[in-house]
Amino acid sequence: MVIILKENADSHQLENLISWLREQNLKVHMSEGVKQTIMGLIGDTTAVDIDMLKALDIVEDIKRIQEPFKNANRKFHPLDTVVNVGEAFIGSDELVLIAGPCSVESREQICSVAKSVKASGAKLLRGGAFKPRTSPYAFQGLRENGLELLLEAKKETGLPIVSEIMDLSQLRLFENVDIIQVGARNMQNYELLKELGRTNKPVLLKRGLSSTLSELVLSAEYIMTGGNEQVILCERGIRTFETSARNTLDLSAVPILRGMTHLPVLVDPSHSTGISKLVLPMSLAATAAGANGLIIEVHNDPPHALCDGQQSLTPEMFDDVARRVFAIKPFSYSFHS
Amino acid sequence: MVIILKENADSHQLENLISWLREQNLKVHMSEGVKQTIMGLIGDTTAVDIDMLKALDIVEDIKRIQEPFKNANRKFHPLDTVVNVGEAFIGSDELVLIAGPCSVESREQICSVAKSVKASGAKLLRGGAFKPRTSPYAFQGLRENGLELLLEAKKETGLPIVSEIMDLSQLRLFENVDIIQVGARNMQNYELLKELGRTNKPVLLKRGLSSTLSELVLSAEYIMTGGNEQVILCERGIRTFETSARNTLDLSAVPILRGMTHLPVLVDPSHSTGISKLVLPMSLAATAAGANGLIIEVHNDPPHALCDGQQSLTPEMFDDVARRVFAIKPFSYSFHS
Amino acid sequence: MVIILKENADSHQLENLISWLREQNLKVHMSEGVKQTIMGLIGDTTAVDIDMLKALDIVEDIKRIQEPFKNANRKFHPLDTVVNVGEAFIGSDELVLIAGPCSVESREQICSVAKSVKASGAKLLRGGAFKPRTSPYAFQGLRENGLELLLEAKKETGLPIVSEIMDLSQLRLFENVDIIQVGARNMQNYELLKELGRTNKPVLLKRGLSSTLSELVLSAEYIMTGGNEQVILCERGIRTFETSARNTLDLSAVPILRGMTHLPVLVDPSHSTGISKLVLPMSLAATAAGANGLIIEVHNDPPHALCDGQQSLTPEMFDDVARRVFAIKPFSYSFHS
Amino acid sequence: MVIILKENADSHQLENLISWLREQNLKVHMSEGVKQTIMGLIGDTTAVDIDMLKALDIVEDIKRIQEPFKNANRKFHPLDTVVNVGEAFIGSDELVLIAGPCSVESREQICSVAKSVKASGAKLLRGGAFKPRTSPYAFQGLRENGLELLLEAKKETGLPIVSEIMDLSQLRLFENVDIIQVGARNMQNYELLKELGRTNKPVLLKRGLSSTLSELVLSAEYIMTGGNEQVILCERGIRTFETSARNTLDLSAVPILRGMTHLPVLVDPSHSTGISKLVLPMSLAATAAGANGLIIEVHNDPPHALCDGQQSLTPEMFDDVARRVFAIKPFSYSFHS
Repeated sequence: MVIILKENADSHQLENLISWLREQNLKVHMSEGVKQTIMGLIGDTTAVDIDMLKALDIVEDIKRIQEPFKNANRKFHPLDTVVNVGEAFIGSDELVLIAGPCSVESREQICSVAKSVKASGAKLLRGGAFKPRTSPYAFQGLRENGLELLLEAKKETGLPIVSEIMDLSQLRLFENVDIIQVGARNMQNYELLKELGRTNKPVLLKRGLSSTLSELVLSAEYIMTGGNEQVILCERGIRTFETSARNTLDLSAVPILRGMTHLPVLVDPSHSTGISKLVLPMSLAATAAGANGLIIEVHNDPPHALCDGQQSLTPEMFDDVARRVFAIKPFSYSFHS
Repeated sequence: MVIILKENADSHQLENLISWLREQNLKVHMSEGVKQTIMGLIGDTTAVDIDMLKALDIVEDIKRIQEPFKNANRKFHPLDTVVNVGEAFIGSDELVLIAGPCSVESREQICSVAKSVKASGAKLLRGGAFKPRTSPYAFQGLRENGLELLLEAKKETGLPIVSEIMDLSQLRLFENVDIIQVGARNMQNYELLKELGRTNKPVLLKRGLSSTLSELVLSAEYIMTGGNEQVILCERGIRTFETSARNTLDLSAVPILRGMTHLPVLVDPSHSTGISKLVLPMSLAATAAGANGLIIEVHNDPPHALCDGQQSLTPEMFDDVARRVFAIKPFSYSFHS
Repeated sequence: MVIILKENADSHQLENLISWLREQNLKVHMSEGVKQTIMGLIGDTTAVDIDMLKALDIVEDIKRIQEPFKNANRKFHPLDTVVNVGEAFIGSDELVLIAGPCSVESREQICSVAKSVKASGAKLLRGGAFKPRTSPYAFQGLRENGLELLLEAKKETGLPIVSEIMDLSQLRLFENVDIIQVGARNMQNYELLKELGRTNKPVLLKRGLSSTLSELVLSAEYIMTGGNEQVILCERGIRTFETSARNTLDLSAVPILRGMTHLPVLVDPSHSTGISKLVLPMSLAATAAGANGLIIEVHNDPPHALCDGQQSLTPEMFDDVARRVFAIKPFSYSFHS
Repeated sequence: MVIILKENADSHQLENLISWLREQNLKVHMSEGVKQTIMGLIGDTTAVDIDMLKALDIVEDIKRIQEPFKNANRKFHPLDTVVNVGEAFIGSDELVLIAGPCSVESREQICSVAKSVKASGAKLLRGGAFKPRTSPYAFQGLRENGLELLLEAKKETGLPIVSEIMDLSQLRLFENVDIIQVGARNMQNYELLKELGRTNKPVLLKRGLSSTLSELVLSAEYIMTGGNEQVILCERGIRTFETSARNTLDLSAVPILRGMTHLPVLVDPSHSTGISKLVLPMSLAATAAGANGLIIEVHNDPPHALCDGQQSLTPEMFDDVARRVFAIKPFSYSFHS
């Protein structure tokens, strides 16, 4: 961390600042110029509150050099974290496909989709029970019943399940869910993240619509600080000025996150684009960019899906996508190659 | 709502669609062109699920004409909603100032700030007890104790209080809080919004960092649909590419929201800019643009604030801001003038 | 195009509007509702000035249904445009690599880079002579001399050359340049685009930093309307709130543009990310997403590059990228498959 | 400027770097830590090419501390620049109104508007002759004839005129134009900026749609470096995700630019919002925020304006805006108060 001091900084205040920094076990190096004096801080600055320092009278600006996270930092944990669920090893060399409908709608629907995506090579079943919807007038999910139907599909197919939690009061209902998903709108729901940090369940953490990669990793850090290190990151598109797809899928996030952290990185080509015919090209591109897996919406009857049918694939389309992403995988980028 | 049909749309599917729309009490008008046929829907389309329609095979695109909200819509409720708390009438011609520290830190701090902002004309005291912080290593607020200290300051000064809730499990602690604030990160925490809709407390709903005005109003609609009509909107800056201030304060949101809804609209010049010396010009500008009030951070010792000190005013600076915004108010824009 | 009329629209003005629309050879269909009347326009609305219509007293809003471009529109020209330059067929099934330094610096540099990228499979040489730089204090390119050095490299290697024009007064200098590049900052320099439309040179049109895909295609339309149909589009990253890479590479632009237009689409993984180690993963991803080619910065001595060295590859690194993108190409998305 | 070195940086390369920096008249201070060594550079780093340094093998990152501009920098020129044209002193305590139609359409139109805006207190007449339009099918302006009509209006009313240049080949036509406007799309047309730097005409430089304030000031620096110090900055809205107004007017840009530079800062409430009924509130807010003037679209017949009629005021509406902004001015923010 580098602190830029104001011209003619009061020397008494400066001494106080230096003592305080030394108490935080930081070494302080001064570089005095004609117009500007800068202080270099050497040591672990993860927990230094940058806003508090910026508020000091004698400080003009502060530049952070060290990343503000530790548990998720690849510098301190060079080996990849691999999250094992069922037959999937998320974070390994394998490309893991997670597939299923946006919303669970009926026993028949979820079991039928589960069987077909399993046959196409998916290792996990996704399905929404609690649905965050922008409008209070839109379908809000089957809730508890949706989770039960998912568990039935799991029983029938053996596929572990992924579903989204919307509030920490729902946590007890997720006991038999294999991976708990935290959606984009909840990426900074810190009370929820802290509670998930106290569980031993893998957490699939989706990037917020306007969250920087650093903020995404800090949200993972909230979970990991509680003791739960099984965090899976997921790029799902960011909000920009462009409106030709629902969001802008940020695929450079994949290699950047793989460098910043040791956590697995998935990509969601369905929600990010919102358009079913973009799912194939974006799935291929995400795989090529080195994603550890894909999470894809599949519905046995897209035109009648109760939510987001527009972005769903039919099982046949998903089978084609699966075949093609597995084929492209050996030619794709890998962080370690 | 206008539905654009694909060329050569299957006539059987088209009949089904038309029947289904008529069942929703909508009238259907067809305009057939050489290349394109469009359907105009007449009636209340608030609850029509646009994503579901878009997923139909025969539909190329859909354009919404009517706004997707009703309770908050000025078209249906032309009179301004005025929220009365203590001596403040938020939404009336009066400019309401809400002031106080980012975080409650001690009894002495909060009471001292409360007294001085009251003397300067603030009608409500704000103070954070539960603090959403990007990093798990940053100060997280005094929590329950913070709320108790706020209540003491309320007792001592008579100022009603505003504080932020972070999770619905905290709701019982807010019994004596006068206005419950929902922060930008929770603007789309729908479980929380629904629960707040069942209370009879005024809710101060801050715009999400990357939320459109339409999404903000739909979040208000979540609360209002539950029966609680006392919702106060607050513009607090949006995330853009520009980094010279913390966020970009979107002041055109003020007259636009006043036109879209009958709800009061506040502006937060402190969090949006993150820079104390911008608070005065942005407070004047927000008032001029027709805001119903301002929510401003004031700390009796900004350099030692445990969070966001950099954007806090001293009581003296706040007194100057208050004096100047009250002076400019009579020359400002008003939706009804 | 759909025109939504205001309630109680004046009938005389309405008749005037209808007559005017019919004079534009448009058919008008009216759908009258209780609260709202909408007019559907059938016919070619490309040239209808939407802003002018919106200004009419009786009009509440207008929704465009037809795309506002014609020459570039795939609907009217379903076959791919293929631009042939030297041995490259840009827009065909082939993946075309264009490589070279950000700035031409010396005869030795440009010839050395040209030879090595040719050996690795590049079909065109790129090199900046006129350099748009944010700061007036940064290196502005060798200008005329730079173009001459490029021509020498072309002579020596047989590689056709691509270079950026910054102003139409420079056009006569580009006589022997094979493809004229229009940079992101000039994407909406309409005087330049019109002039290029009167030449018979292929134009490589880069997307502006904050341009929508529709605006990019409209800029291509400016060139094509002048008679020059050899336009090549290039995605090179857009400006968003994310700062971990220089810009956000928008790869979904590739399949979307391929669907909107019949023009070839390239991707620039160097300028978009600004980080050399992201060039490999983003080149693989762009190829997988169906790009017709890549434009990559290569420098024989990146640390001493006079501009943007940070994003340049060495010839050895480029050779590796080339080998890998050619290997992944057969498994990639193609618009027609 | 602070250079962060990579761990285990090669000592020979380090020595080379240090010598090179000293040759640029910079003093180098080293702070060595266990994991990281940082170099502080003291001296004038305006012209140091940050990209070149970042490309060095031994450099991990660089943080700029000093602003990269000099001529426009308030630190070096604390006194306000005041541009005097006719009776207007732009940059002084006075609020200067510039008004007129988006496009010049006829002699009658421009003279009529000129007279009425003069009567309302405008000190300059604006009018577009060369019009940058997104679509090649939209009205492109009367060009040379438009400039001639503007000059006639100037002759008739005595109002100095402001008009937009689109290409440097048009410069000779602007001999009698009092202020040359550079539009948002040309803010980074560096060949044009350099040429304007060699004239002695005031330049009204509009912020690009996605330009940072620092980039805007660097574009001003291009003009000033050529010797022309009469640059007027103009905030005109930035592109964000929000679509309820055409662009997002960034009013915090006003006090921030006033602090960064000594140049006058105007605001354009017409183009930024694109909606005529937002012009009054945003004009009041811009004035309150300390703008030196406003540039407002006025048309004597908005519904028949050939471009952007939707955002134009009638002369009567402009008279009301003028009256109200002059009334609010004494209560507004001023950088020096």
